[in-house]
Amino acid sequence: MRESSLPNLGVGLIGTGFMGRAHALAFHNARTTFELPFNLKLAALADADAARAEHCAQSWGFDHSHADWQQLISDPSVQLVAITTPNHLHFPMAMAALDAGKAVYCEKPLAVSLEQARQMHRAAQSAGVVTRVGYNYQHNPMIGLARQMIEDGELGHIISFQGEFSEDFMGDPQSPWSWRCEQAHAGGALADLGSHLLAMARYLLGDIEAVCADSQTVHGQRPTTRGGQEQRPIAIDDHTYALLRFANGARGTFASSWLKHGYKNHLSFEITGTQGTLAFDQERLNELRIYRPGAPGRDGFQRLLAGPTQPGYAAFCPAPGHQLGYNELKTLEVHALIQALCGQGNEGPDFAEALEIERLATAIRIAASEMRWVTVSDI
Amino acid sequence: MRESSLPNLGVGLIGTGFMGRAHALAFHNARTTFELPFNLKLAALADADAARAEHCAQSWGFDHSHADWQQLISDPSVQLVAITTPNHLHFPMAMAALDAGKAVYCEKPLAVSLEQARQMHRAAQSAGVVTRVGYNYQHNPMIGLARQMIEDGELGHIISFQGEFSEDFMGDPQSPWSWRCEQAHAGGALADLGSHLLAMARYLLGDIEAVCADSQTVHGQRPTTRGGQEQRPIAIDDHTYALLRFANGARGTFASSWLKHGYKNHLSFEITGTQGTLAFDQERLNELRIYRPGAPGRDGFQRLLAGPTQPGYAAFCPAPGHQLGYNELKTLEVHALIQALCGQGNEGPDFAEALEIERLATAIRIAASEMRWVTVSDI
Amino acid sequence: MRESSLPNLGVGLIGTGFMGRAHALAFHNARTTFELPFNLKLAALADADAARAEHCAQSWGFDHSHADWQQLISDPSVQLVAITTPNHLHFPMAMAALDAGKAVYCEKPLAVSLEQARQMHRAAQSAGVVTRVGYNYQHNPMIGLARQMIEDGELGHIISFQGEFSEDFMGDPQSPWSWRCEQAHAGGALADLGSHLLAMARYLLGDIEAVCADSQTVHGQRPTTRGGQEQRPIAIDDHTYALLRFANGARGTFASSWLKHGYKNHLSFEITGTQGTLAFDQERLNELRIYRPGAPGRDGFQRLLAGPTQPGYAAFCPAPGHQLGYNELKTLEVHALIQALCGQGNEGPDFAEALEIERLATAIRIAASEMRWVTVSDI
Amino acid sequence: MRESSLPNLGVGLIGTGFMGRAHALAFHNARTTFELPFNLKLAALADADAARAEHCAQSWGFDHSHADWQQLISDPSVQLVAITTPNHLHFPMAMAALDAGKAVYCEKPLAVSLEQARQMHRAAQSAGVVTRVGYNYQHNPMIGLARQMIEDGELGHIISFQGEFSEDFMGDPQSPWSWRCEQAHAGGALADLGSHLLAMARYLLGDIEAVCADSQTVHGQRPTTRGGQEQRPIAIDDHTYALLRFANGARGTFASSWLKHGYKNHLSFEITGTQGTLAFDQERLNELRIYRPGAPGRDGFQRLLAGPTQPGYAAFCPAPGHQLGYNELKTLEVHALIQALCGQGNEGPDFAEALEIERLATAIRIAASEMRWVTVSDI
Repeated sequence: MRESSLPNLGVGLIGTGFMGRAHALAFHNARTTFELPFNLKLAALADADAARAEHCAQSWGFDHSHADWQQLISDPSVQLVAITTPNHLHFPMAMAALDAGKAVYCEKPLAVSLEQARQMHRAAQSAGVVTRVGYNYQHNPMIGLARQMIEDGELGHIISFQGEFSEDFMGDPQSPWSWRCEQAHAGGALADLGSHLLAMARYLLGDIEAVCADSQTVHGQRPTTRGGQEQRPIAIDDHTYALLRFANGARGTFASSWLKHGYKNHLSFEITGTQGTLAFDQERLNELRIYRPGAPGRDGFQRLLAGPTQPGYAAFCPAPGHQLGYNELKTLEVHALIQALCGQGNEGPDFAEALEIERLATAIRIAASEMRWVTVSDI
Repeated sequence: MRESSLPNLGVGLIGTGFMGRAHALAFHNARTTFELPFNLKLAALADADAARAEHCAQSWGFDHSHADWQQLISDPSVQLVAITTPNHLHFPMAMAALDAGKAVYCEKPLAVSLEQARQMHRAAQSAGVVTRVGYNYQHNPMIGLARQMIEDGELGHIISFQGEFSEDFMGDPQSPWSWRCEQAHAGGALADLGSHLLAMARYLLGDIEAVCADSQTVHGQRPTTRGGQEQRPIAIDDHTYALLRFANGARGTFASSWLKHGYKNHLSFEITGTQGTLAFDQERLNELRIYRPGAPGRDGFQRLLAGPTQPGYAAFCPAPGHQLGYNELKTLEVHALIQALCGQGNEGPDFAEALEIERLATAIRIAASEMRWVTVSDI
Repeated sequence: MRESSLPNLGVGLIGTGFMGRAHALAFHNARTTFELPFNLKLAALADADAARAEHCAQSWGFDHSHADWQQLISDPSVQLVAITTPNHLHFPMAMAALDAGKAVYCEKPLAVSLEQARQMHRAAQSAGVVTRVGYNYQHNPMIGLARQMIEDGELGHIISFQGEFSEDFMGDPQSPWSWRCEQAHAGGALADLGSHLLAMARYLLGDIEAVCADSQTVHGQRPTTRGGQEQRPIAIDDHTYALLRFANGARGTFASSWLKHGYKNHLSFEITGTQGTLAFDQERLNELRIYRPGAPGRDGFQRLLAGPTQPGYAAFCPAPGHQLGYNELKTLEVHALIQALCGQGNEGPDFAEALEIERLATAIRIAASEMRWVTVSDI
Repeated sequence: MRESSLPNLGVGLIGTGFMGRAHALAFHNARTTFELPFNLKLAALADADAARAEHCAQSWGFDHSHADWQQLISDPSVQLVAITTPNHLHFPMAMAALDAGKAVYCEKPLAVSLEQARQMHRAAQSAGVVTRVGYNYQHNPMIGLARQMIEDGELGHIISFQGEFSEDFMGDPQSPWSWRCEQAHAGGALADLGSHLLAMARYLLGDIEAVCADSQTVHGQRPTTRGGQEQRPIAIDDHTYALLRFANGARGTFASSWLKHGYKNHLSFEITGTQGTLAFDQERLNELRIYRPGAPGRDGFQRLLAGPTQPGYAAFCPAPGHQLGYNELKTLEVHALIQALCGQGNEGPDFAEALEIERLATAIRIAASEMRWVTVSDI
């Protein structure tokens, strides 16, 4: 590729799983879709399997590969480190990258314990670099529209939030044990799914002050492999429900389950204000349903379809109704990150915000285990 | 009308409002739609306004009218007393009817206090008569189908219930004060709407053992009349949210609001078991959505439409897709009551069940006010 | 019942099948629901089976019964004759009633041939009485709202109509032969279902000038009984499709099938004007979807729910979202008929309109059989 | 990038508009998402504006640029020519590329006249190269699933197809004239939108033998610019409706409009067979609704969600419910093309198939203008 007059921004990506490839696609597509202020380069890709690292680097368009992630972090062509490894590795990798003074783009959750998250936040503050955590759903242009409507007061004063993130991939009692069933890997329905919903609630309505909750392990053991005889005991939550009190006065409910048959990606919410209601479901991510009171008998919920009046959508398609997919939300996440890197905006959760999400999830966990209301700021 | 060889069952109806007429229609339509074991007679209609009582009696096909409800109760042509008056009158009227040894069909709520409800239950036990309370939504054939599916284990072991009954008729802060805003008249979103949802939850899943809840008065005052200047303070809940623990082990959430813009009759729930999920919304009362896991990528929620395979539906229409309406649910309620009167079944909540619903609502109220979990049997 | 000061209107009903009972319910409910200008009396019920006639008369509240329908027509207590017998009997019964100078309320279709329909129309004109034909779906308050919106120009100038009435009750090739499979009984998808859609199209948009069509008999024979070995040849249409040109300039499509799996009562249409679109489906009869262009990205289809701002709904229920059912559409049909009888409005198709519907269906039949466009006024 | 042992496949792309960038994204993403048998190179990009060509080449990752498309065609690094220019340029560009013996990937429509399409088809046959035309909607994995179900006989014998492709971007009479309003540029609702539907109908059900149709120009003139005073007369169809007879015996309807308010990308169809119905709407491209008859009252339409059991989906995401977007359909189109280039499959319409689509659209145009049935093979 020819020389560009723009400054270089070299991306180093750790991990070559599904999420690694999703990052690779997102970086490339951000470059093709948007006019960026950097010459964005896919500099380096790391995977502990050297052959796989090299193969993927070649297929995905990275300049070179590393078998050792620490080499990637110290690679001078890398200014931004993207971490897509298993949850328990987020901490050491992000800490090393921050120590090297590099910007960090870490998949969610930030860490596998609140204490780790606190350390990561402090390190990021010390390093003074841009950080981002991959709560990608909020980069959906329809969510941007929802937030704008709320901020502009189109729904009046917000009084309630009812949110749910449920899937059914563990619904079958024979679905085998995996790392997602371990507390030490930030597993469980609350951490794995619910944290996305908490991020969304905070993104749209701000701080949550107090919570009460109920968690349950429905299936106390699962086979170690599909169809296997060996059972492994499980202590993590299969579903968690909570009551929420927001700082702005709104009240509401939270639900998160990975046993809820029929749902594949049901990150959904209804937000009501004194002048209307707004509803969303990730399973139809290009739609938003809104209601504003009108003449009696002549009002009703309206289905808005994503379209080019939303900047994030227009980047991909000039006509409404053509729809964005999951991978484009990652591209928009990367774009928001790059804007932050050049000081043009601050969309998307950084380590400070991710710490707040962890604090909130912890409050819910304590409220459920102690069967009492918990003030989030006490955590 | 000609003499019938069947025994007479004389209905005495108190109240000529919307619900009074709904009862009148329901009794007549039950007679036309079903083969009844009684010669059902619309015997007497009472309203404090004598002229209105007589006018409605004539229009609605009642034999005669009373201006004094106590005369209706002692009228020898009346064997069944139907009460559709304001909530605070349910207690004296039902107690008088029970004292006279007559069957009682009382609109919900049973009473305006738990203590009244307890007395009414004891009186019904002493009288040994059939009683019914108008939680009409459970008489929907689609709800009957849902219950059958649950009982037959089609969803496996039930693990969660997420229910809501929201409307928006008080959503406008200028919606004026009414008796529904008074605790003394069993007002508030929890009592007015939520009690229907509690009845439904119990009907489908049985006892609820413990609750935690959050209630809020969003609009602390309302005008005394629409557009009026005078404001009246309000202390009742505008919306209430709760966590539920069922005796069968299921967990879940409860929501009730009369401020939720966009909803007109949103009595809705999702019930998940280990083998499926079932969803219902009263705003589409002829539909049930169910999901049962199948081959991956080949399963999905299925929309069932009401049809004549459900006995309650077949009574009205021989073809599916033609739809029942709200008034037909009342007819089915009356039919269930008449079956109970002749010893053929016991569908529909009696005073004992209505007392349990009141107890549960009271537990939620206490849990919200004291911000703690409450064991329902402690109430 | 007591004497009323209003003039009597005696109803004589012929037929005790599903539709007979639907009429009986509708007449009673119209009396209870509306303030009528007559003392509406259920005077006489006729069925060829004398015992059944008497039994139903008693259950349904009719004063007396006849085994001979001609006696019912000459019964001096009968002023209005309601005909719910098989299609081929509509002609002799209606002609006799008209000859006796009585008002006639005939189920659809008016007749089993265009020639019969013409004679019935002429006889009605000579008799100078009120006539009505039971195209009940147009009495839905949501359809009334749709018509009002169109008339008020809310959709601008109407440019297209896309309508369908499909069900699946003959979808199984083993569904047995019935009278509905006979041309001589006005059978076939076009006559049985499609005529409702034609009535609706005319009700909403007026005259159709020209049609082109395609009809097909998919299953050329069916068993004479369910599971039976004997097959009976069938020549009637299983599905019919047409192109429509309206007098107002609108263009569009027509579809009618009784083989369309998944649909139980799919009388549906989309109507587009220069300023909006309106959509309806009888399977959700309490809803109307409308779209009017707004700010780009901020408009979308809106779901209107039936409610008391529509007079026909308010008669049954004071709150929105409670829903009407099929039988209430019959009550509204009866109410419209009674209003016509006392000179207060002219809603609902009379014999003149029903003749136009038959003419249109005939034009479609000819267009399909001759594979050419047909000008409706040429028929 | 490093050397690969795979043979090179150099792509030359002509056009830098929305569709040009969509192709650029698709080629890159195909490379990242799939294991390809080629070393796919973005070799050259052409645009008449040399500066824009160079700028886009750099942003989108092409090796070099050309201001003259003929140079791109003769560029030895180019083996595959992708054409995304205005419709009237498809012919000269494709003919030149075929003449140079290069594979051609041309956006739809193939040409602006049937005669051009015939020549292009003959040239492709002579050249013996792989050709593809961008009817991208059929590359949706849900459409693949639909086709599989039909081929496997899951719906029984297919008896009807009801299809529509409507949008509303010309719904406002003040929407200005554009090249899409010109016959000479293959404009009009039938050619612009309807051709996608015809491609889909053929892809799913095969040949259409005969058509009858109705077309209308609703707005006979439009302003030359938005808000401008000058009007320009228009003769092209604003909406077209047709009756279809398929070679397999199925019957049905076709509708195409760009005036239909409320629809943004409503490419939709319902296909019924003797054993079920299948429905799709591009506005919810990750869903398919299917109905198969089951126990009465226990069956109903089922919503299938896209997921990784479909290979095209699995390439992008390992979990269901995450959704693909419009751009991923282009990536899948490119992947199908590359598979054809290496002799591994023949999915997607080539010039022969695109000619058949043009023939069918022409038959509809003639049927509408002459108001008669047209046998497609006569065209």
